[in-house]
Amino acid sequence: MLFHVEMQVRIPPTLDPALAERLKQEERAVAQALQRSGVWRHLWRLVGCYANVSIFDVESPAQLHDILSTLPLFPFMEVTVRALCRHPSSIIDDENSNRPINT
Amino acid sequence: MLFHVEMQVRIPPTLDPALAERLKQEERAVAQALQRSGVWRHLWRLVGCYANVSIFDVESPAQLHDILSTLPLFPFMEVTVRALCRHPSSIIDDENSNRPINT
Amino acid sequence: MLFHVEMQVRIPPTLDPALAERLKQEERAVAQALQRSGVWRHLWRLVGCYANVSIFDVESPAQLHDILSTLPLFPFMEVTVRALCRHPSSIIDDENSNRPINT
Amino acid sequence: MLFHVEMQVRIPPTLDPALAERLKQEERAVAQALQRSGVWRHLWRLVGCYANVSIFDVESPAQLHDILSTLPLFPFMEVTVRALCRHPSSIIDDENSNRPINT
Amino acid sequence: MLFHVEMQVRIPPTLDPALAERLKQEERAVAQALQRSGVWRHLWRLVGCYANVSIFDVESPAQLHDILSTLPLFPFMEVTVRALCRHPSSIIDDENSNRPINT
Amino acid sequence: MLFHVEMQVRIPPTLDPALAERLKQEERAVAQALQRSGVWRHLWRLVGCYANVSIFDVESPAQLHDILSTLPLFPFMEVTVRALCRHPSSIIDDENSNRPINT
Amino acid sequence: MLFHVEMQVRIPPTLDPALAERLKQEERAVAQALQRSGVWRHLWRLVGCYANVSIFDVESPAQLHDILSTLPLFPFMEVTVRALCRHPSSIIDDENSNRPINT
Amino acid sequence: MLFHVEMQVRIPPTLDPALAERLKQEERAVAQALQRSGVWRHLWRLVGCYANVSIFDVESPAQLHDILSTLPLFPFMEVTVRALCRHPSSIIDDENSNRPINT
Amino acid sequence: MLFHVEMQVRIPPTLDPALAERLKQEERAVAQALQRSGVWRHLWRLVGCYANVSIFDVESPAQLHDILSTLPLFPFMEVTVRALCRHPSSIIDDENSNRPINT
Amino acid sequence: MLFHVEMQVRIPPTLDPALAERLKQEERAVAQALQRSGVWRHLWRLVGCYANVSIFDVESPAQLHDILSTLPLFPFMEVTVRALCRHPSSIIDDENSNRPINT
Repeated sequence: MLFHVEMQVRIPPTLDPALAERLKQEERAVAQALQRSGVWRHLWRLVGCYANVSIFDVESPAQLHDILSTLPLFPFMEVTVRALCRHPSSIIDDENSNRPINT
Repeated sequence: MLFHVEMQVRIPPTLDPALAERLKQEERAVAQALQRSGVWRHLWRLVGCYANVSIFDVESPAQLHDILSTLPLFPFMEVTVRALCRHPSSIIDDENSNRPINT
Repeated sequence: MLFHVEMQVRIPPTLDPALAERLKQEERAVAQALQRSGVWRHLWRLVGCYANVSIFDVESPAQLHDILSTLPLFPFMEVTVRALCRHPSSIIDDENSNRPINT
Repeated sequence: MLFHVEMQVRIPPTLDPALAERLKQEERAVAQALQRSGVWRHLWRLVGCYANVSIFDVESPAQLHDILSTLPLFPFMEVTVRALCRHPSSIIDDENSNRPINT
Repeated sequence: MLFHVEMQVRIPPTLDPALAERLKQEERAVAQALQRSGVWRHLWRLVGCYANVSIFDVESPAQLHDILSTLPLFPFMEVTVRALCRHPSSIIDDENSNRPINT
Repeated sequence: MLFHVEMQVRIPPTLDPALAERLKQEERAVAQALQRSGVWRHLWRLVGCYANVSIFDVESPAQLHDILSTLPLFPFMEVTVRALCRHPSSIIDDENSNRPINT
Repeated sequence: MLFHVEMQVRIPPTLDPALAERLKQEERAVAQALQRSGVWRHLWRLVGCYANVSIFDVESPAQLHDILSTLPLFPFMEVTVRALCRHPSSIIDDENSNRPINT
Repeated sequence: MLFHVEMQVRIPPTLDPALAERLKQEERAVAQALQRSGVWRHLWRLVGCYANVSIFDVESPAQLHDILSTLPLFPFMEVTVRALCRHPSSIIDDENSNRPINT
Repeated sequence: MLFHVEMQVRIPPTLDPALAERLKQEERAVAQALQRSGVWRHLWRLVGCYANVSIFDVESPAQLHDILSTLPLFPFMEVTVRALCRHPSSIIDDENSNRPINT
Repeated sequence: MLFHVEMQVRIPPTLDPALAERLKQEERAVAQALQRSGVWRHLWRLVGCYANVSIFDVESPAQLHDILSTLPLFPFMEVTVRALCRHPSSIIDDENSNRPINT
């Protein structure tokens, strides 16, 4: 099932820069592994912001929470989660698939 | 280029039901044509709302405005547009492509 | 899976009173059937408001949307949906169960 | 009587990690004791947030305030309290009971 | 127990003036009866607004909802309810009493 | 004349605990003296919050400002002031009196 | 005593234009009489808005409410009232006077 | 030309008290000089707040910005500026004058 | 002097379409005349909205109000005005000029 | 293509003043170079604020993000980006040109 997730990152200026850098590297590794697994289906940067818009494809809300709450930068994120479903005008017949009907 | 668009539809209760129905049918046809052309890349329903979250892939902001402002239900929509770009942790090397690098 | 749903009802004063009454009766019947089926697990009135707080236990976000968007009063509701999961301090070991562990 | 309570936790990054951990453990113990006593009737995690939604069943508003204001993490919480009552479409005849009428 | 209630009245300009006047007279009668019974303990006008701030002393949240939701102007009100309790610095030892300790 | 005052207290976690405790004791003493004098007519705790709702009966807005701005915890408060007057449906004929007409 | 008042006027498009015009003329006459009496001490237009910012010098909050609530356009206004007092850095020694000390 | 300016002061608790005091004294001196020159035409305290409402009479927006941005407490202020003009119902024929027409 | 103006247009669905069309044509004519005169210096459409962002170069706030409040669509606009001045990092030495210094 | 960008700068009071000054100088140099290149087309100060309103003319949203996210003061900015396009009433026939048609 799909969830629309926005993550706004606010790293406090008092955080040790080396720690901040390490957390960012870890965050990147986790994000890429989750994208490769198909769980983190889309990841876009919001222009001008230290924030992203993402689409997650998970087994359950519990799995989504486990993923989000263990992200290395989670303590510095404001996260907004909204549940998605298939739109009646969508040309895709599987709410979890990106492949158009006519292909 | 990609834009994140949210459309909240509020059809006034005084609108003639037949007209409302016709506008919804026209909206559906336009939305499906734009999806088939690749411009309206994603279209999801927000659970519990008469609203959608969409990703558009357009040539310019002007093209996006032309599309949105001529949607049959546009007069009854509250629209929010945000520009997207590639996220540095994305595994996709083309901001406009959905195909992962490792495939 | 569980979702927290708030429904604020705003029936326009121009709605025909007989129609409003009929819709309320239908809404009541649907709500009670869904409670009996276990899908609409909790339903509370917010004191002083024409609004409720509810907990739904559904198979998928899509099922939740189908239920909410076909409620008789849906056209007059402002609905807010938030996904829930088990709290780590909960004494209940099944996120979908109300029965405490120690019983 | 029932109250709907939301608790958003924001532990400042300057708090000593050992103290933070101890407070979380104490919070957990208090929350579980209150659940076992039936006062903290429901406790859910909001997906993607360091926050919960809870239902309390108390003798009075004063008892609720005593409970909330002495939670170990209270100094780091933003708390929202709303009074609940039985919904006229509820199939439960006792506002404080979870047992459906037809069982 | 005490609740702090704010009522903002917005009578739609399309309401029949005679009906509006009758509802206001009925509201006044109900409000005065509830004040005499001690349930509607305080009633103040907010300067410059068609709104009031009130303190209710009720047996339960359910009683408060019954009172508010049957006020003649309730369909045209936006109501905000907040639970009160005794303040630790109050000189009054009974949360429901206005009589100071030292009298 | 009457004013409705809300005070939200936010003591920064970096404040010396001994100083915080002293300020709270001083605040309490001032609040009780002002209650005894009749100026701070009502003082309630908002359930679940480190905040109060108060009614002040003062000679002038200037007196109210002098009182509020010299409260020991004022530097840590967010204060909201709203002017009150007699409600036309009130059964009390003196806006400054709590004694009902019929007693 | 002084109050800062903002009035945002929203005349509904369904109001009879002749009635709207008459109300505006009456409003103007009342506003000018109150200015001449010294009660409506300042009246400014907010640039680009059908709104004003005003300073009233009244005997009491009750008098202010009587004035505002009987303005001809009051049913179509959103009014915000805030109490003022002398600023400690003001060069004027009477909070109600505009005449500087050194003149 | 006239501008309506609100200044909310938030001095961080970590600021050196001696520095804070010196800045307040300097602010006071600047504010009084600008009042004497006629540029800072009105200065009122908002009751219960560390904030003021002011009316400035300046040659240009640029002059207003120069004044505001060099106030000693400017780094700790949240400032809101709104342009004013003569209200059509004002009895004063010069938007920059306080003297009524009929005197 | 320069002002930043945003205009959000909301034409009520009950407005006669012929009148709406005539007002739009008149608005267009006025907007173009003001652009030619140099007063309405910039006019942009916000993508996806029936709204614009504009820069006006006027003699005074009063002139700006006269222009905005007489626009044919003004009764259906929500207008936000903010004063601008030269930015210290701007390469243009005249706040009212678009021509760069180095040309 | 054009984007409307607002930047609100909030330098934390704990930042080393020498570092803050250096960042401001670097920001200024970058801003001026981008103005000379034509990318940062307009830059205005919002009166009374440590904030600017800017118009950028970029090749893509990605270019805009690269520019904004590498500004020296970006870590201390709250940035709002909105896409612009030609307004149908504009007298300029190229959305990227400032030169009026009739010159």
